[in-house]
Amino acid sequence: MLYVIGTGPGNNQFITKEADEILKNVDSIVCYKGYKEFVEHYGKPIHNTGMTKEIDRVKFALEKAKTENIALVSSGDATIYGMASLAYELNNEYNYDVEVKTVAGLSSANMCSSILGAPLNHDFATISLSDLLTPFEIIMKRILCALEGDFVISLYNPLSTKRKEPFLQTMDFIKSYANDREINYIIGIVKNAGRDTEEFKITTINELMDNLEEFMEYIDMKTTLIIGNTNTKIIDSKMITPRGYFNKYIDNK
Amino acid sequence: MLYVIGTGPGNNQFITKEADEILKNVDSIVCYKGYKEFVEHYGKPIHNTGMTKEIDRVKFALEKAKTENIALVSSGDATIYGMASLAYELNNEYNYDVEVKTVAGLSSANMCSSILGAPLNHDFATISLSDLLTPFEIIMKRILCALEGDFVISLYNPLSTKRKEPFLQTMDFIKSYANDREINYIIGIVKNAGRDTEEFKITTINELMDNLEEFMEYIDMKTTLIIGNTNTKIIDSKMITPRGYFNKYIDNK
Repeated sequence: MLYVIGTGPGNNQFITKEADEILKNVDSIVCYKGYKEFVEHYGKPIHNTGMTKEIDRVKFALEKAKTENIALVSSGDATIYGMASLAYELNNEYNYDVEVKTVAGLSSANMCSSILGAPLNHDFATISLSDLLTPFEIIMKRILCALEGDFVISLYNPLSTKRKEPFLQTMDFIKSYANDREINYIIGIVKNAGRDTEEFKITTINELMDNLEEFMEYIDMKTTLIIGNTNTKIIDSKMITPRGYFNKYIDNK
Repeated sequence: MLYVIGTGPGNNQFITKEADEILKNVDSIVCYKGYKEFVEHYGKPIHNTGMTKEIDRVKFALEKAKTENIALVSSGDATIYGMASLAYELNNEYNYDVEVKTVAGLSSANMCSSILGAPLNHDFATISLSDLLTPFEIIMKRILCALEGDFVISLYNPLSTKRKEPFLQTMDFIKSYANDREINYIIGIVKNAGRDTEEFKITTINELMDNLEEFMEYIDMKTTLIIGNTNTKIIDSKMITPRGYFNKYIDNK
């Protein structure tokens, strides 16, 4: 049996009881090397060496899961930019004939929303800026559609040391879209969400573009951005997207 | 102190350790009447009578939080269609001067994705079909933008006994959008996610519209729909949206 488990965005207190219970009972754990520190306290054998690629890692986990209960672990949620779909695809393609179960976890967007206040408190779109697997024109089309729909946007994988261009073009596009409409989107930037080194900034698209170099030094692959919709505001230093109760029942009285 | 807590989509095993720990330590719990059964095992005083409206409930919680540690609890995530933004708004408007902390939880979309397989495994948009607080034309605009962006779509609050029109118009619109482009979107429907009565169906937009009455009897306010993107497929009876690894590294070899 293969459990594809998301353990939440950071330290162990953000795992669900379900995932915690399963991890206590599996025979061994397969995970990305950098993630070992978050699961070694379960005292299980951990397999992570020699598996630099996602496909090798998932195939290794499927092979072992023919005879053992294996947890294939990653941070966040198992399906939200996680390994779950790949596990089903490879299981089918190579006839491992293993039972695969997805175990949900808190995704980074949920966590970042709570850290910032409540920016995801209305309809939102989640977009990864990594163009490794998704053509950049599709990413840009999604950014445009999300802005047109006035969705709050959560941006995963914003930039890495090697991959800066998608971030630059996206921010440039959002700024010109916003300026054409006299909007200045509020942006929450959360780094290392749920870990001891967690930190965040709340800014705006104009301020970000005016200090682009500084922000690009700050943002990395462990950073998630939340771009507000046109109703998002700052209350008591928190980033809030109203759900509408207040406007309907109090402001319009 | 007021903790606005999401306890996950159903039974207690889907709560995070953080939320569980806080609930063990607060002085009392404020929640919607129908949610009492999920928190009474904490053995805390529970306040839920005479509070038919969200604003009254949140104001009550803020008032009590001036002198006690209060948990304002709802299912799912505290910000994703939850009460967090309203708590910040009312705290500010009426000068309660209470410290408010949002505590994230597993949202229904995360849970439903794991139940169905991995339909949320690429960029997605989350939309509530309730037109109580959001004008219906904004909802429809978001549906269109989400389709144009080829986002996976998770639909919350699809219909209630009194509110059927937004669902009907949305499904009708998605069908005609799909048919114009010769797409037949895969749709996962999950009811009572994470509860003992959990069940799901996987269908398509054409099949749903051909059996509309039957599906409308099945779907209720405790149901979440996930509409696949144009790459979503069924593998071993699971609903999967590929992330792209398989296509890039195996199919195109």
